[in-house]
Amino acid sequence: MEAKADQVPEEIARRVLAGEERALARLLSGLEDGASWAGAALRLLRSASAARRPARGQSSTEALASQVIGITGPPGSGKSTLVDKLILAYRARGERVAVLAVDPSSPFTGGAILGDRVRMQSWAAGSGSVPAKAGSGGGVFIRSLASRGRLGGLSRASAQCSRAFEAAGYGIVIVETVGIGQSEVDIARLADSVVLVAMPGSGDDIQTIKAGVMEIGDVFVVNKADREGADRAVRELESMLETASGAGTELPPVLKTVAETGEGVAALVAALDGHWERLRLSGELEARRKRGAIAEARVLLSELVLAELEALEGELEETLAAKIVSGELEAADAAELLFESIRKGGVE
Amino acid sequence: MEAKADQVPEEIARRVLAGEERALARLLSGLEDGASWAGAALRLLRSASAARRPARGQSSTEALASQVIGITGPPGSGKSTLVDKLILAYRARGERVAVLAVDPSSPFTGGAILGDRVRMQSWAAGSGSVPAKAGSGGGVFIRSLASRGRLGGLSRASAQCSRAFEAAGYGIVIVETVGIGQSEVDIARLADSVVLVAMPGSGDDIQTIKAGVMEIGDVFVVNKADREGADRAVRELESMLETASGAGTELPPVLKTVAETGEGVAALVAALDGHWERLRLSGELEARRKRGAIAEARVLLSELVLAELEALEGELEETLAAKIVSGELEAADAAELLFESIRKGGVE
Repeated sequence: MEAKADQVPEEIARRVLAGEERALARLLSGLEDGASWAGAALRLLRSASAARRPARGQSSTEALASQVIGITGPPGSGKSTLVDKLILAYRARGERVAVLAVDPSSPFTGGAILGDRVRMQSWAAGSGSVPAKAGSGGGVFIRSLASRGRLGGLSRASAQCSRAFEAAGYGIVIVETVGIGQSEVDIARLADSVVLVAMPGSGDDIQTIKAGVMEIGDVFVVNKADREGADRAVRELESMLETASGAGTELPPVLKTVAETGEGVAALVAALDGHWERLRLSGELEARRKRGAIAEARVLLSELVLAELEALEGELEETLAAKIVSGELEAADAAELLFESIRKGGVE
Repeated sequence: MEAKADQVPEEIARRVLAGEERALARLLSGLEDGASWAGAALRLLRSASAARRPARGQSSTEALASQVIGITGPPGSGKSTLVDKLILAYRARGERVAVLAVDPSSPFTGGAILGDRVRMQSWAAGSGSVPAKAGSGGGVFIRSLASRGRLGGLSRASAQCSRAFEAAGYGIVIVETVGIGQSEVDIARLADSVVLVAMPGSGDDIQTIKAGVMEIGDVFVVNKADREGADRAVRELESMLETASGAGTELPPVLKTVAETGEGVAALVAALDGHWERLRLSGELEARRKRGAIAEARVLLSELVLAELEALEGELEETLAAKIVSGELEAADAAELLFESIRKGGVE
């Protein structure tokens, strides 16, 4: 079978740079599938995009960067409606906006997320996601990523798709994910600005933001703030933030929004602009992206090691395990033997 | 500094085989610290122990094995009192009993576990843990393992200490741990028979046994069964077990105990004897221990890989991360480069 035209990396990269949404959609699918042609196309796209936009007195990162905004929070906190309103606000000032909705496809939350995705479809006509409401061709691009296989794959695809959007010239890239464990870690890794969304609730409202997750938030939002208990939720968040951070540290803003009506969305955009400015001026943007790149490379590396391990699994199961059980070998010795096998590039 | 007499592997192994409790205590400390002399001593001890006890028409595993009984459950379910009563029951029929109390030292549960350990101290006079109540020298040996450093270390030490007890001739090895996440996985890996302890409670009693944990239990116990709701707790457990297992599968027993008075403990011992018999007769004992050995070797291997990664961290942070951020390199390329470095045995 000859290489299909829509799988030639150079061709895909050229068409994405020319603003063809169908080529971008194709690239994203390829990245989601982990196809090697897509990886090559992303590489080409990014270096071509870098070459087209010369640095203007800033580091190349700062000149090139789109603001990648991560939005996470528990199911039902109204994240998707908030994202809808953010799209409107950014479009109103002429930004091109890309949205990546990450769906870990948990059997427990699948329904809720599907609901979110359906709501967001109002933006996207057809699979190529031509903006329907914004009305300015090419201004909004929405993409859902579902888990195909293991979680690591989803996290890899999220980071790559986010970089593809950046290279394709979307100045604002919003990554929305449901806050359940791993996805929060992932979003913290790939986003420049992280918005944690909570909502007023019956006592356990704030517990939905786990203690360990507080530190990844750059902006905190209590959505559905027209409900009872919103002010209390804000106070609780603020006091948790004070406890968590050292004395003298500037605390991240805690805002109230009512996404349904759009109330508070302008303030959220202003807070995000402020955070972006501080990131760029302080050099923290570059540092943060480096940390993200390190974390991403580490995950990919452990995937490579795991794949190698799977190849060694046969030996472990058939020979070494019996020796450990009978007392001939300690598990630590078996681990050493396997490690040497990896070093030598496989079992002899 | 010359090698201390109590750190010579041959010497330690010989003295443990001769029944010296102080030497065993020393070995366990060494294993907890991850000392290499202790690993060597364990290796010697296990092969000497294997040589001393010839197989009697069974596989060597089955002839040699002690029954390793894992006991886990939420804080406050009365595990330690239950362990006390199990020690009494096994001692009454002449078994030598070793207890490993694994304490993940969580800041959230530390207090409760400490309480457990203090209660169990009634068995152990002094640090060498000479049995105080059992009254038959060398019949009971109790050891607490606390987390020193990372969780992986604790899990490694638990498995090694358990094997040391076996090789030292304790026919019953009880490993007690608090059911919080990783510790349940670890206990399932190293125990032959797993007892999950629950207690009657106010509605959420059974939720304290998480769904994913049900499958590791071989015997289920509702302790504090003199409290209201015990029968309901048993019924809920039974119906969860029915739901979780396929049709036609034999369900594990669900027993009621009152550890404080000893009620139901004889039935628990009988259930454990029955499970042990089935494991030995069916060949499942060998299969289970092999699975445990595989899992343990895998964890140790990933520790080796991680250590290697730490050595490469410098290169990743200083050179590769910047290239990923600027678009020169994809994270996947960086991962490939690092993987090759590991294969070649370090950065050049």
